[in-house]
Amino acid sequence: MWLSVVPGAPVEDLASALIDIPSVSGDERAITDQIEAVLRGVPHLEVLRLGNALVARTALGRAERVIVAGHVDTVPIKDNVPSVRSDDGEWIIGRGSVDMKCGIAVQLALAVELAAPTRDVTWVFYDQEEVEEPRNGLGRIARERPELLEGDFAILCEPTSAVIEGGCNGTLRVQVTVHGKAAHSARSWKGINSIHGMAPFLATLAVYEHEDVEVDGLIFREGVNAVGITGGIAGNVVPDVCTVTINYRFSPAWTVDEAKARVERLITSSFESSPAPAGQSVTWKYTDEAAAARPGLDAPMAIAFADAVAATGAPAPRAKLGWTDVARFGQLGIPAVNFGPGDPERAHADDERCPVADVRRCHAALRDWLTAPVS
Amino acid sequence: MWLSVVPGAPVEDLASALIDIPSVSGDERAITDQIEAVLRGVPHLEVLRLGNALVARTALGRAERVIVAGHVDTVPIKDNVPSVRSDDGEWIIGRGSVDMKCGIAVQLALAVELAAPTRDVTWVFYDQEEVEEPRNGLGRIARERPELLEGDFAILCEPTSAVIEGGCNGTLRVQVTVHGKAAHSARSWKGINSIHGMAPFLATLAVYEHEDVEVDGLIFREGVNAVGITGGIAGNVVPDVCTVTINYRFSPAWTVDEAKARVERLITSSFESSPAPAGQSVTWKYTDEAAAARPGLDAPMAIAFADAVAATGAPAPRAKLGWTDVARFGQLGIPAVNFGPGDPERAHADDERCPVADVRRCHAALRDWLTAPVS
Repeated sequence: MWLSVVPGAPVEDLASALIDIPSVSGDERAITDQIEAVLRGVPHLEVLRLGNALVARTALGRAERVIVAGHVDTVPIKDNVPSVRSDDGEWIIGRGSVDMKCGIAVQLALAVELAAPTRDVTWVFYDQEEVEEPRNGLGRIARERPELLEGDFAILCEPTSAVIEGGCNGTLRVQVTVHGKAAHSARSWKGINSIHGMAPFLATLAVYEHEDVEVDGLIFREGVNAVGITGGIAGNVVPDVCTVTINYRFSPAWTVDEAKARVERLITSSFESSPAPAGQSVTWKYTDEAAAARPGLDAPMAIAFADAVAATGAPAPRAKLGWTDVARFGQLGIPAVNFGPGDPERAHADDERCPVADVRRCHAALRDWLTAPVS
Repeated sequence: MWLSVVPGAPVEDLASALIDIPSVSGDERAITDQIEAVLRGVPHLEVLRLGNALVARTALGRAERVIVAGHVDTVPIKDNVPSVRSDDGEWIIGRGSVDMKCGIAVQLALAVELAAPTRDVTWVFYDQEEVEEPRNGLGRIARERPELLEGDFAILCEPTSAVIEGGCNGTLRVQVTVHGKAAHSARSWKGINSIHGMAPFLATLAVYEHEDVEVDGLIFREGVNAVGITGGIAGNVVPDVCTVTINYRFSPAWTVDEAKARVERLITSSFESSPAPAGQSVTWKYTDEAAAARPGLDAPMAIAFADAVAATGAPAPRAKLGWTDVARFGQLGIPAVNFGPGDPERAHADDERCPVADVRRCHAALRDWLTAPVS
């Protein structure tokens, strides 16, 4: 059965239909085929496909161009596809409802419905956002066809409970390794126990107070967390290597290099805080880094969009804490915000669910803004 | 080529021949076949084979019976078989030279040579000592044919540098787990980081002072060590579970239950020493336990043997720190000591090597004691 998008039909029904097409990361061919078929049937769009990513553009010669983007993949299904509607009709329940099939439904409905937006629009549907960064479909477009992402402002329809969320925290991962000296555990005093040596660093992390950092009027909450630890090779060996992986979520107040300097100060001051056995050493290496993005809400297009959303009665813009692909637009020099249906804290849950009201509100706000006269 | 044991030939040559028959744990059939063939050719021995373990006994009706035991298996070979002799002729170099083919050579030579010992002797050659406890060949004999291990005194030819080492430390392994609460690392304050929660326990281990405990006149040095740590499931998840595995090497002053009580006090006092987040909990479970063995040097047979060894000019008896199978004899109520060629700290090394002098001294001391008139 092929997806059909009827202008004016309830957008939440389109969301359900999209959820019912499984599209776990790496397996987006079917849903991309369906969306492509819809877009190719729309006379006012130029459609390009790159692998399992789609770019559909109006070319009306407007003074401004907006990019509206979202990913079509989901985390693995947990008995939560096909979708269901809650008994009261107020929730769409199923894998991807929050992250981010309901946002995709808003995009796809508007791509079909808005034949003459007052700003040209580039609609982007991409793959593999929920997996390791190098596979990300939006990143692939930015590398291979950056001209397709040219524009004055970008909206990523990631879940924000239909509130504008500006910017995003950056993220660093660093593996911190204590090097000791192996020994038989029956004669442990001949070795240097690297797991024991990790104690001062874990103690620092345990009492670390996350910081709230204000950037462009929004509050970004940071965090430093151990997300993994390994050490030991056998039950009778004092281990010579213990490695903890740290994830630092840092505010847009810092560049990646500044964030690295901050985390390195944390590491070195921790280990200097208590005497270490002679012969113990500490090293670290970065395994992942992604820049933060400033909120960008001072850009003229952003101000206009914020006004349009405020007119729907939505709360004031706030900071996005999770890293999202808005940071890619930031790196391309394009102001970008997150704005989509669903509470991000419900994303990936087995009972993932999105309010129907959010879907309608996002659809209405974007429609109204994209059809209002440009001042 | 079949092993031949010529009475009076240099025992170190027999040791080299034994090293040259690979016998990594689980693969002891070939060496057991060879030793069995030798023993069955000796008229003064009754020989029994149980899997890859051999029990060879004299039955002279002596007033006392001594058990002399050793394992034939080794840890994996690392380009160190066949054996070589050092240029100065003083070292036998190769896998198992220390642990414990040189000891096996002493046993096998004496089993052939001593047709009329003044104490009856039970020679035991067993398999799978270097692997997990349930596979241990001596344990299998003790479970299935305990009457074969009856005796008044036991000598295990584990490496001791030809010095009597009495008793052994016991060993406990316990997995200590901190249970927190998972959360996305972008909103880490909604979780409880179990790795951070391990900090006070590691801090306790880091400053733990090992104790020297005197038992029956020998000093047993204890130790508590983290030998493994795991935690974390993904780079963006605050981990809800972190587990550290502790190895407690405890002196024969304590029973297993007393040792458990000691380690549990260490665990609980560590975590009580610093405030934990509400909702964090700590559990532990034992994964391995083996009793310590008292030195047993007050038994009349042990005193006689110690005198015989002292007559060779060897240093005074000392405590055995590693756990060895002497503990099995302790559990059978048989006093037991370790006495064998080679420095245990050279065991398992890639350049494992045993002094020829140790082999000769052990051979001489055991021969003299087993042929001396019994007072």
